[in-house]
Amino acid sequence: MKASQFFISTLKEAPADAEVVSHKLMTRAGLIKKLGAGIYNYMPMGLRVIRKVEAIVREEMNRAGAVELTMPVVQPAELWQETGRFEKMGPELLRIQDRHGRDFVVQPTSEEVITDIARQELRSYKQLPKNFYQIQTKFRDERRPRFGLMRGREFTMKDAYSFDRDPSAAKASYQVMAQAYRRIFDRFGLTYRAVAADSGAIGGDLSEEFQVIAATGEDAIVYCPQSDYAANMEKAEALAPAGPRGTAVQALTKTATPGKSTCADVAELLGVPLSTTVKSLVLATDETNEAGEIVKTQVWLLLLRGDHDMNEIKVAKVPGLEGFRFATLGEIDEHFGCKPGYLGPIGLKKPLKIVADREVALMADWICGANEPDFHTTGVNWGRDLPEPDAVADLRNVVAGDRSPDGQGELAIERGIEVGHVFYLGTKYSRAMNATFLDENGKPQPLEMGCYGIGITRLPAAAIEQNHDERGIIWPDAIAPFTVVVCPVGMDRSDAVKATAESLYTDLLAAGVDVILDDRGERPGAMFADWELIGVPHRVTIGDKSLKDGMVEYQHRRDAAATKVAVADILAHVKGRMAV
Amino acid sequence: MKASQFFISTLKEAPADAEVVSHKLMTRAGLIKKLGAGIYNYMPMGLRVIRKVEAIVREEMNRAGAVELTMPVVQPAELWQETGRFEKMGPELLRIQDRHGRDFVVQPTSEEVITDIARQELRSYKQLPKNFYQIQTKFRDERRPRFGLMRGREFTMKDAYSFDRDPSAAKASYQVMAQAYRRIFDRFGLTYRAVAADSGAIGGDLSEEFQVIAATGEDAIVYCPQSDYAANMEKAEALAPAGPRGTAVQALTKTATPGKSTCADVAELLGVPLSTTVKSLVLATDETNEAGEIVKTQVWLLLLRGDHDMNEIKVAKVPGLEGFRFATLGEIDEHFGCKPGYLGPIGLKKPLKIVADREVALMADWICGANEPDFHTTGVNWGRDLPEPDAVADLRNVVAGDRSPDGQGELAIERGIEVGHVFYLGTKYSRAMNATFLDENGKPQPLEMGCYGIGITRLPAAAIEQNHDERGIIWPDAIAPFTVVVCPVGMDRSDAVKATAESLYTDLLAAGVDVILDDRGERPGAMFADWELIGVPHRVTIGDKSLKDGMVEYQHRRDAAATKVAVADILAHVKGRMAV
Repeated sequence: MKASQFFISTLKEAPADAEVVSHKLMTRAGLIKKLGAGIYNYMPMGLRVIRKVEAIVREEMNRAGAVELTMPVVQPAELWQETGRFEKMGPELLRIQDRHGRDFVVQPTSEEVITDIARQELRSYKQLPKNFYQIQTKFRDERRPRFGLMRGREFTMKDAYSFDRDPSAAKASYQVMAQAYRRIFDRFGLTYRAVAADSGAIGGDLSEEFQVIAATGEDAIVYCPQSDYAANMEKAEALAPAGPRGTAVQALTKTATPGKSTCADVAELLGVPLSTTVKSLVLATDETNEAGEIVKTQVWLLLLRGDHDMNEIKVAKVPGLEGFRFATLGEIDEHFGCKPGYLGPIGLKKPLKIVADREVALMADWICGANEPDFHTTGVNWGRDLPEPDAVADLRNVVAGDRSPDGQGELAIERGIEVGHVFYLGTKYSRAMNATFLDENGKPQPLEMGCYGIGITRLPAAAIEQNHDERGIIWPDAIAPFTVVVCPVGMDRSDAVKATAESLYTDLLAAGVDVILDDRGERPGAMFADWELIGVPHRVTIGDKSLKDGMVEYQHRRDAAATKVAVADILAHVKGRMAV
Repeated sequence: MKASQFFISTLKEAPADAEVVSHKLMTRAGLIKKLGAGIYNYMPMGLRVIRKVEAIVREEMNRAGAVELTMPVVQPAELWQETGRFEKMGPELLRIQDRHGRDFVVQPTSEEVITDIARQELRSYKQLPKNFYQIQTKFRDERRPRFGLMRGREFTMKDAYSFDRDPSAAKASYQVMAQAYRRIFDRFGLTYRAVAADSGAIGGDLSEEFQVIAATGEDAIVYCPQSDYAANMEKAEALAPAGPRGTAVQALTKTATPGKSTCADVAELLGVPLSTTVKSLVLATDETNEAGEIVKTQVWLLLLRGDHDMNEIKVAKVPGLEGFRFATLGEIDEHFGCKPGYLGPIGLKKPLKIVADREVALMADWICGANEPDFHTTGVNWGRDLPEPDAVADLRNVVAGDRSPDGQGELAIERGIEVGHVFYLGTKYSRAMNATFLDENGKPQPLEMGCYGIGITRLPAAAIEQNHDERGIIWPDAIAPFTVVVCPVGMDRSDAVKATAESLYTDLLAAGVDVILDDRGERPGAMFADWELIGVPHRVTIGDKSLKDGMVEYQHRRDAAATKVAVADILAHVKGRMAV
């Protein structure tokens, strides 16, 4: 490609609404152009990146035996009503009506449509396993779209759906996809981590997120540097402390803590570590009858160490706490006779169920609220001052330094951007939509499903969050808009520069390298600034002066300075620096 | 590709709602699957065809210097309000609201968005010419979607938009596109015709449709077998007859024609050729004031030969008839004192403007209504019986046998399916949206535009309408889902068959041929029926019997019978039969 025949449009300033570096750089480098909130034009330079991402994904999906099809962007509501998602999903599902007033959705994913296809097409066990995928435009009507392509409303996703005869075959299909994802992310040339994720009601460990590591990532991901353990924060297990419960030493004491309603404030006032305090979280669960009316409410007290955060996913897995909600102030007053900030498990007005975090269950001499405004109780001990808890469970987010659940070392935490997800679905959709196949005995069985997504348009944004400097983007070779840029300096003044540039350009093209020749005639400063902003990884500069000595200059986008290379060697040099 | 790793799903019966052969065959061959009215899943076999169409279009668009980008499917209404299309377009424009109640459209085309991009990005004459294109999902909420992909609601279109500094540069860009389209349609391997189309208010001849010739086509297209003249029916000019007006012979006579209100009935009753009759069409034009109130109405009488059809596009170009409507029964009664069916230009109650078709203006001794129910007048002659018409114009559709406008022979008419359109837009959108660039003198000038569409998903349907037989589709090589199918008979029973099939499959792949090996183990009859329905152009059958003599069978989809070819020669034979 010659730059004069392409479209390059860079900006000095980032748009005012750009909060993250990828949004800023993608806009400044002319990769995207905002059309509306969360809606972007993919400009020529950006589209090249997206097409490279798509090509890698497509190749590896095909290699893994998945078959590509395309499902419509605009989908009839009927199928979404069959699974109940038309009603259940929030306003992020863009619901529309056609000229006849019929309901449609703009697809955010395609479980319903693919299950509809499968129930018509996959009739026999002989047709299984089958995996269908599409690379298609999706829409999610985010309340507050932001961060450019990171959280847009219209985006492109690769979504794949596997169909199998039984759970063990489905799990094998899942593993094939998980392997394909590793190959895909390896090929992107990004630092990433596959982390175990929560699989909700389905159970098992068959849910993994693919997280591109970046300090600016929205997700906290947990890993063990000493092993291959990795999970997202929702999923990562906090083991019970190694030792037995500590021994009670202190006496139970009511202590004035005026105005100190947080554990941190109390610990500071009392001059003790925050880890000796226990916070009280009050939840409630409602039992309803068939008419949906609440017939019984159970209130729960959860106890966590003051320096720990509650993990809602884990809490919802405690037997009885499925579907919990936070208690109302009325319910709190009814059970504690006190406002939040000074609550504790001793001296309750009305009984409730107490669940202690594993950590809290083994603490001795701890501090909690006294159920009286401006007072806390110190020296609290299980058994002596209050009964053992009704239940002990992992209720909290892990923190750095926690023991790894695989026993191999200590957990570390880093930030990531989720760009892929593999998920074992079981029969959730096939049962709702009656998607069955006939087994060897001619008996209908529900199809076992998995679903597998990659955020095609999010990936470039994540790549930039991970790979940039103050001058701009630094693309990995595999997804760079161009792999090499040839920059002739003074092409219009020097026939030698022009001839060398065009000859190198032709040679690189012939060698199958995705090269752009910058024949725009820009001054060197502006030209280099453009390509550093755009982030093309390999640059060859051709100038009259070096050329007199038979030399040109090579500089990788990460190199601090250019290297002189003989004209005769430059093609080999460039290829030598390219990623395999 | 091996069939066992792909997805093949054929049907014996076409769906009940399929009216045209392409819809029937695409469904039966498993290329598409209906999701809703006018909304289709592109199944794996169909998607391969679409991808090949896209690839050819993309290659030739790039070769012609156009630059690819992607504009969103969901577009904010604001831009559409700037050009007035948000209000002006009918319900085929799918208008939607997001969660905040803001208006959006699902794009049917992208003139507004590309003009918005251009007015921001194309600031200087130095950046021109520029041509941007996308291959993107479109939506048109057809009142009655039908004919499968031929008139779907959701479809894929390649739309390109050129930007130039002045009309002559824009026309050069137009010609570049028109040439690219010829290359594209040549490569598809279809019989097509580029026909001049009406360019509306813009004027000039810069609008051409690319029509795939098919007996089932919706459009009548006009061409001259003796020259390269071709136009669509709306555009094709009907020349004035060669000779002078005939001489009046008959006397003006009022003739009873009870109940005969059509020219055909009158001609039959009187035993004269239909071409001696003249039909009266009554139109009206309204003059409005600034408030949009009608302040004056002019009624017009158009006279056409009884065997000719009115061409509304041509009529609207007669000075004064822009924006015409058909007259009301009240207006007709006011001017003729008679109901339609017996109207004529003689003995009017109230004067009106008479426009004669070129043909009628030169007729003598013609027949028209007598402005009295159940009576016609014969022997009518201009000058003698009524004044010369107020205007003479080309008002009619051409018919086969008319003289070609280029004077090179006689016109013929055939049917076509419009799959492409190139159009010079001028400054319609750039003026409405204030899209200007700075010329050499630093003065803002409106961008001159052209737009260029290809119906990506319609093209396969048109190809099938043109290329099929009673057994199924017959794809041209370039857009076949697979170019070659290797059909081993009894692969499971014969190691020789299996080995030969796999070796030929590998050789074809290595030769860059898009081949599928049918390893499903179907019986020969079912296997051949599948591939004939799907329409793969080249088939190699490998059976134990022939193989004993070192032979396999080759059959092109259009061949009446198979040809025996030595195993050693089959690769060369297949390649020899493939389109270049």
